[in-house]
Amino acid sequence: MTAPTDHQTANARTLISIDAMGGDLGPAAVVAGCLKSARANPDISFVLHGPEAELHALVNKHADLKERTTIRNATGVVTMEDKPSQVVRSGKDTSMWSAIEAVRSGEASVAVSCGNTGALMALSMIRLRKLPGVNRPAIAVLYPSSNASGFNVMLDVGADIRADADDLLRFALMGMSYARNGLDLKCPRVGLLNVGTEEHKGRSELKEAYDLIRDHQSDAAYEFVGFVEGGDISGNMADVIVTDGFTGNVAIKTGEGTASLIGQRLREAFKYSPLSRLSSLLAYTSLMRLQKKIDPRRVNGGVFLGLNGTVVKSHGSADATGISAAIKLAAQLSENGFNDKLAARVAASLPTEETTTE
Amino acid sequence: MTAPTDHQTANARTLISIDAMGGDLGPAAVVAGCLKSARANPDISFVLHGPEAELHALVNKHADLKERTTIRNATGVVTMEDKPSQVVRSGKDTSMWSAIEAVRSGEASVAVSCGNTGALMALSMIRLRKLPGVNRPAIAVLYPSSNASGFNVMLDVGADIRADADDLLRFALMGMSYARNGLDLKCPRVGLLNVGTEEHKGRSELKEAYDLIRDHQSDAAYEFVGFVEGGDISGNMADVIVTDGFTGNVAIKTGEGTASLIGQRLREAFKYSPLSRLSSLLAYTSLMRLQKKIDPRRVNGGVFLGLNGTVVKSHGSADATGISAAIKLAAQLSENGFNDKLAARVAASLPTEETTTE
Repeated sequence: MTAPTDHQTANARTLISIDAMGGDLGPAAVVAGCLKSARANPDISFVLHGPEAELHALVNKHADLKERTTIRNATGVVTMEDKPSQVVRSGKDTSMWSAIEAVRSGEASVAVSCGNTGALMALSMIRLRKLPGVNRPAIAVLYPSSNASGFNVMLDVGADIRADADDLLRFALMGMSYARNGLDLKCPRVGLLNVGTEEHKGRSELKEAYDLIRDHQSDAAYEFVGFVEGGDISGNMADVIVTDGFTGNVAIKTGEGTASLIGQRLREAFKYSPLSRLSSLLAYTSLMRLQKKIDPRRVNGGVFLGLNGTVVKSHGSADATGISAAIKLAAQLSENGFNDKLAARVAASLPTEETTTE
Repeated sequence: MTAPTDHQTANARTLISIDAMGGDLGPAAVVAGCLKSARANPDISFVLHGPEAELHALVNKHADLKERTTIRNATGVVTMEDKPSQVVRSGKDTSMWSAIEAVRSGEASVAVSCGNTGALMALSMIRLRKLPGVNRPAIAVLYPSSNASGFNVMLDVGADIRADADDLLRFALMGMSYARNGLDLKCPRVGLLNVGTEEHKGRSELKEAYDLIRDHQSDAAYEFVGFVEGGDISGNMADVIVTDGFTGNVAIKTGEGTASLIGQRLREAFKYSPLSRLSSLLAYTSLMRLQKKIDPRRVNGGVFLGLNGTVVKSHGSADATGISAAIKLAAQLSENGFNDKLAARVAASLPTEETTTE
């Protein structure tokens, strides 16, 4: 990314399409997240989807946000209870639909939503359509880990509740491409999540996927490290963790819940006695440094991989910091043309072609 | 548990059968764990299975352990690579087989092993046999949580890689019984692990299990809280988390891995600067208090539920502290007659009988 030149105008900014509704904290949190991002990054602008009057009232408070934001009226809201099939059939008036439409039309390069994951995935699939060679798209997240970059790519974490061996191979290819482009790893290590690292363990589709992923590694510029276990998601055995969306979803939520429990216990430990309260004052900077490193809000944002267009799913409970992190990720992916690279990678690797794509 | 009286002799101690082999750290760690437990609990004694000469050399160093330990020679070792079916067919000479045999014969009331989980489960099933009404036994663990007792019961965490709706109902009943007897909860809250809390979400066997567990709750003295998510494993939504062994295994290992990553980052944060090193000295007690609360070794030990006899599976990587925690759990379960209560509970709840059992 280069610094903006004099010739660049507001139109040259990366336009991000944002679903203002459907998050647990409502549109105020989403607008606060946009504001945070706008102040941190001069190169982005927004098209915000939701009830016009409400959004105007929120955006107009901030002149620096207002001048970079277009509001698109959408009166319907997709709730967490709505069935994906319902939303696809009759959700045309919703802010989520409108946000995806802006990507479909080419107006924006990427959409961000913190609404109902199932509905967002279903809408994204129907409206943006799958890339050639992709049967099941996947949601990928960056999970804090002990490897050099500080993160592993993990997918699928909930686009679908199942995946067969072929899907798992495609997840490996898409995750590898994300790790190359997002984490700057030349030859990412790919691991397949299982209940043990021995080759004979696990479900039959995993054994089949093991062979497929192993056999593709020479063509596709990744190193297959074989089966990995839950503990390796935060470890340094692999850079890309491949699994089905049910297991992946449970795993990341378990990890987040455990991290949050430890944070709570840490605060309790430091409130225990006058001495521990004193020590917590002195330890404040260290603790803040730690919190910054493990705060799940800072890596908020799963990316839907395998579609004609980029969609970033933020946590339903994301606050301004979380939404701003999702916007940052969306802007990065949009700016580096990641989706085209991924499409080329999947297309090149699948039959037996040996075209090399970044 | 009452204090030992003058009439009690070494024979009145709770005898625990211990597989000394198959753990990552070898028999020295197992013997060190026994020593720790022996010193903490005067009411237990051991029968230790493995290569006689090696075990004698380790045990004889400690007079207080020696007088409470019988060594049973077994030359074979089940490795982590051995297939369960192999071990069942030709593992008669192994320390694992011998350890389970001591429970089967009634000599010991409970067995502890840190060896190959699949082999231990297969041997336990074949030699101890399943309880009436149980198709798939399960491994249950205590997972640190924010509820009153500080722990949730979670099962299955790896006895099998699949479970149908009927199995999940039995897991609910067995987990509930464990929570009543192990955590002293009169009416445990049972949750079914899924990727969302909405009723229509998830795999079909989960929807079926939802109905079964809900319909049994009035007879069986638990409260069904419905679907729970990964974050609830360490939360306060349920006391018992029911899932299949694949998902459960990945989830607990993810949680442990995440906790260990945070611990590592916490140490780094406190080494960052002279001030943070000073503050860590002052914070030492607080940090130790925290570590004690979240140390996975202190809740080490999964319990096999659904068999005619109790088997405690310790982590393969357990050290003396971990093994001692598993022995402590084994002794508690043995002393309170938990397995008979669980058997009665499953038998009573399954058809439509309404016998109430503790």
